[in-house]
This record gives sequence, structure tokens and C-alpha cells, in this order.
Amino acid sequence: MDFPSKILENAVNEISQLPGIGKRTALRLALHILKQPENQIDTLADAIKNLRKTINFCSECYNISDNKICEICLNPSRENGELCVVEDIRDVMAIENTSQFKGRYHVLNGLISPIDGVGPADLKIDSLLERVKGGKIIEVIFALSTTMEGDTTIFYINKNLSNFDIKISTIARGIPVGDELEYTDEVTLGRSILKRIPYTGSI
Amino acid sequence: MDFPSKILENAVNEISQLPGIGKRTALRLALHILKQPENQIDTLADAIKNLRKTINFCSECYNISDNKICEICLNPSRENGELCVVEDIRDVMAIENTSQFKGRYHVLNGLISPIDGVGPADLKIDSLLERVKGGKIIEVIFALSTTMEGDTTIFYINKNLSNFDIKISTIARGIPVGDELEYTDEVTLGRSILKRIPYTGSI
Repeated sequence: MDFPSKILENAVNEISQLPGIGKRTALRLALHILKQPENQIDTLADAIKNLRKTINFCSECYNISDNKICEICLNPSRENGELCVVEDIRDVMAIENTSQFKGRYHVLNGLISPIDGVGPADLKIDSLLERVKGGKIIEVIFALSTTMEGDTTIFYINKNLSNFDIKISTIARGIPVGDELEYTDEVTLGRSILKRIPYTGSI
Repeated sequence: MDFPSKILENAVNEISQLPGIGKRTALRLALHILKQPENQIDTLADAIKNLRKTINFCSECYNISDNKICEICLNPSRENGELCVVEDIRDVMAIENTSQFKGRYHVLNGLISPIDGVGPADLKIDSLLERVKGGKIIEVIFALSTTMEGDTTIFYINKNLSNFDIKISTIARGIPVGDELEYTDEVTLGRSILKRIPYTGSI
């Protein structure tokens, strides 16, 4: 791509380093930026800088927080001994949206993935073990993606938790609510038959 | 969407105001930004601010330029009397990539679109007429999108150019090179038969 301006080229190069944004999309965004009022673009740029500079991670669960400890960890009514282990804060937000979980979280900040060079030491696994050692945890619930990386991470952490007298569970896997059986993939359908659950009058 | 942090929420709101970026994509970008080195994010934010603050439009053709007059308008070998009228600078870049046009450009900065509240006064039409009045233009070539807005814009400008003794043309419309006839839409195919061109031994 030949640019008529170095400043434009520089901005397009920077924007296109964001994930999922190619050169063409970056150019479209840059031309949009040119048409906006200057103070609006300053606000955008400052929000990005500010995000990176001042954001804080909860020192307990590594969720994003404006304070040293996040609201969920500060809330005494959520100290029920259940600890939900997730990959990143998007998963915390997704589970919070369901209003079905009343315990606390532990954000790993990734999954073990040798192919991407991510090992156990790159994740918040040590601090998870420390929290369990603290003695107030009754159950660790793994809410990780049902991928090779997710399964590897569960396997590794589970091995490290085997000395503790706690319950270990993973979120249920099976046919999504509302899905038609004939369109479900074979692996999910096969596992959902093998791991069938007793019917208790309601689902 | 409930955010665990005001700073994150603010950044996501700002980023999601860019065209084609929804809240979910904005959150993904924000989480990516959090994982990058601080100086890299400063560079990104500064490039965006800088783009809006220091970019300059060529005072002749309204193409983006780092100087008062762009390189194409400064190049004496491109003063052949041909003036190509385009919607925005992406079209200039696309036509320059073909290496098939040796004249100069005029960037309208949009198309007439009553539904979006864009009238002739919002575009660089007056300055186009001024350039034609200057007397050095032999041919005006419309290279606009083949949409209702593009056609309306051509119609309006053409009417205003009717008093000048210049050639007026539009880029050829027809079946794209490499396309199969049976998959071409009816309107294009119908027009390409009506507006057929003499075969001169090569296409």
C-alpha cells in the first residue's frame, strides 16, 4: 500500500498491530478519525493511554479492578468457599452476567499452551495454590474453554491440588440449551451420552 | 455489559465508537492493550492524536499530504489536463496502484447523499469548478462508486460543468475482468450489452 502521507502511514501501521485489524481496516479507521472533532480523538487516545497506565489487577484474584482489591473479593457475602478458575476477565464478566455463581474467582491470565510458548509459570497458578493453602477454599471449579489448552491446564492444576482436601469440579459439558440434537457435533454428543446425568424432574 | 472497572469501561466505550467495532471487539482490543508494553501503547495513542492534529490536506486537490501541496499536484509531468474526480483518498490510492492514470485528482471528500444529510455544499465541488475555470483542464473523469449517491453526484457536477468546453467522462462500467458471465448481476450485464464497445483486436 502506497500512502500519500507519512503521518497517515504511521497511524495505519500502529492501528493495524491490534489483533484482527488489517491494513485496510486500519486505513478505514484512520480516515474516520480524520473526520472527527479533535477533542473526541484526544479523549479516545487518552482513554487508551490511561487504560494501560492506571489499570490495576486485584491482588487476590487478578481480575481487573480500579482498586487494590476488586469488589467481588471485598464482598463478604461471596466468601462461601467456592473458587471459580477462569482464563481471563471476559470469562468473569460472562459468568457474572448469568447471576448463577455466588463465590469468588481466580483469573489465570491465559491457558497452558506449549505451541504459543505459554507454560505454567506464565500463569497465576502459584497464587491459586497459595489461596487454596490458605484453607478457606472448599471447592475449586474449573470454568475453562473445552479445548486442548483448557484441558491441559485443568490436568496440570488438578495434579498440584491433589494433596489438598477440597472438592474439584469443572463446569458441565454437553448439548447447549436450545440446540437441536441432529446438528450437535459427534464429540459433544458422544460425551454427553457417556457423562449422562440422573433426571430429577427438572433440567 | 457490566465492567469490573470504570477505566476499562471508559476505554471500551471510546474504542467502540469507531466504525465497525462493537462492544465485544472493543473489549477484546482493550484486553490486548493491557498485555502490551506501555511504550508501545503510548506510540499507538500518540500516532492517533498526531494523525488528527497534524494531518494536512493538499490545498489543490484535497488529497491527504504532509505538505501544503501534495506530491501529485507538485509533479509537473502529471499536468496533462486530465482531472480524476474521486470520493476519498482511498480511491486515489487504489487508482495510483493501477499505474494507469497520469493526470491529477480532485478529492470530493464524500458523495451527495440526502439520506445522510450530505449536500453539494458539504463537498469540495466549488473548488473543483474553480480548478476547471482556471482553464488548464481538458478532461474531467468521474471515478465514483456506481451507486445512487455516486450517480447523483456525477449528475449534479456534470450540470455545473456544462458551460465549460471540456471533455467529461466516467470510468467504464461492465463485467469485471475475470468474472464469469452467468454469475454477473442482471443490471450490470444488461448495461454492458447496451453500452457495448467496438472490438479493436484487444481488450
